[in-house]
Amino acid sequence: MSRLQQALSGHAAAVEQMLQNLLPAVAGPRGKVLDAMRYAALFGGKRLRPFLLMETAALFGVPAAQSCRAAAALEMVHCYSLVHDDLPAMDDSELRRGRPTVHKEFGDAVAILAGDGLLTEAFAVLADPACHPDSAVRLDLVAGLAAAAGAGGMVGGQMIDIAPERSGLDLDGIKDLQRLKTGAIIEYACDAGAILGQADENERSALRRYAADLGLAFQIADDLLDVLATPEELGKPTGQDRDLEKATFVGQLGIEAAQAEAGRLVSQARERLDIFVEKADLLRDVAGFVIERRS
Amino acid sequence: MSRLQQALSGHAAAVEQMLQNLLPAVAGPRGKVLDAMRYAALFGGKRLRPFLLMETAALFGVPAAQSCRAAAALEMVHCYSLVHDDLPAMDDSELRRGRPTVHKEFGDAVAILAGDGLLTEAFAVLADPACHPDSAVRLDLVAGLAAAAGAGGMVGGQMIDIAPERSGLDLDGIKDLQRLKTGAIIEYACDAGAILGQADENERSALRRYAADLGLAFQIADDLLDVLATPEELGKPTGQDRDLEKATFVGQLGIEAAQAEAGRLVSQARERLDIFVEKADLLRDVAGFVIERRS
Repeated sequence: MSRLQQALSGHAAAVEQMLQNLLPAVAGPRGKVLDAMRYAALFGGKRLRPFLLMETAALFGVPAAQSCRAAAALEMVHCYSLVHDDLPAMDDSELRRGRPTVHKEFGDAVAILAGDGLLTEAFAVLADPACHPDSAVRLDLVAGLAAAAGAGGMVGGQMIDIAPERSGLDLDGIKDLQRLKTGAIIEYACDAGAILGQADENERSALRRYAADLGLAFQIADDLLDVLATPEELGKPTGQDRDLEKATFVGQLGIEAAQAEAGRLVSQARERLDIFVEKADLLRDVAGFVIERRS
Repeated sequence: MSRLQQALSGHAAAVEQMLQNLLPAVAGPRGKVLDAMRYAALFGGKRLRPFLLMETAALFGVPAAQSCRAAAALEMVHCYSLVHDDLPAMDDSELRRGRPTVHKEFGDAVAILAGDGLLTEAFAVLADPACHPDSAVRLDLVAGLAAAAGAGGMVGGQMIDIAPERSGLDLDGIKDLQRLKTGAIIEYACDAGAILGQADENERSALRRYAADLGLAFQIADDLLDVLATPEELGKPTGQDRDLEKATFVGQLGIEAAQAEAGRLVSQARERLDIFVEKADLLRDVAGFVIERRS
């Protein structure tokens, strides 16, 4: 197992355990929403966003036992967005990570509530003193998450993704969509690590730029997987962008140029980390991983 | 116009203006989610929760110009809950305050996103230094809202409200439902005012008890209105609890005993405010208003 794979699975296990602790099952009629929140958040995927947060925090000496709380909050927000995006009124997806989506398993109403509950709980986790002893740090984490997840970030991006204008977007429009829908949260993942580590502005800025390049490369890789991967590899149907006539990076650039652009962005992302010398090697590795992955 | 009516409309106007400022319309394809958020939050109802927050804060000398930010955040959360509760997958309501509900006006997908956006923005507003200069105050506001709105509060209450067990609830079960679904946010409204005012624990505790009584009286009054008011008065259909065979306070107690219990709770709520002497007269007045209102 490579150094990166070890770190990925180690961090994923820490976040999984933290999510288990933060989302305990409860008895009685309200228990079902907790069941759905657990179904949505546990047994998760690559946990890329938590990894970015924890590795960025580690640059500044923040131990994983500390950073995995904020990482779990971030993952709750990511999972809430998947639950709501999968709803019949939105993307109407039946499979996610090879399992029925939350609304297929629990019904639409519970899925809406489970998403709402995860989003809300994320802020509770960040505001809790256990997240970080310094209240200014916790407030920065809350403010940053709200900005990244709201109408000026992820929610705004999802709005563009379902808007009638979506199919006719040009390359700049697709970039705007990506920057909001997936980029803002990836950028927040790295910024949150820097906040936890009480990084200086120069360090924070370098990490934000790294994350912006990485996020864009990640989206291009996602578009490529929709064309090149098998449904078995992805755990969900492929060819959806084409079927829905969505404008994508691959559609705009073609497969080869999209692959080249993703590679260029990964090189650039790695260079953003020069100031951290070899301490940032795992962050450099994961940048390559996002465009080489098969799922 | 009574002293209470003047205060209600004055605070409502301040919150309306603040919501206008905090939710500006934007151009481009993501503009539609802002339009829907504005539609959901502006031109609102009685603004009871903001009133409670602002009047409670005023007990401690916090000016309305300061408290109306936190009040606007609270109202965003209230409005988000209405938007999601009205969805076809939930209560399937077509009318709210005499207007088409958000999903009837903008479609289900945009309504889901608008709710998500309002909930997220509320946390952004509370975390912003403009909300209060003391970061410990802002963090308390964030933590309190997350607790009141999440699976241990409002989301949990809505889960009970749509659960199969709902129709068979006994009186204690209905009280639990009320405490979570509507009570937690009303209690938070008063607690947030106390937090903003940096009240001592004795004062906070008195205000929380006042709010708990008031919230329960409010729900009993709501159940009574569903039986006794006209659709024109309410701006939405009546008789829904009976049609849906929902267990309610009125169903359990009968109309007269429910009215008596609401009256008793209001008297008790008023007595909770004794320590604030005449400074709390408007809070005493509004307790009577919640059970005398016709809409």
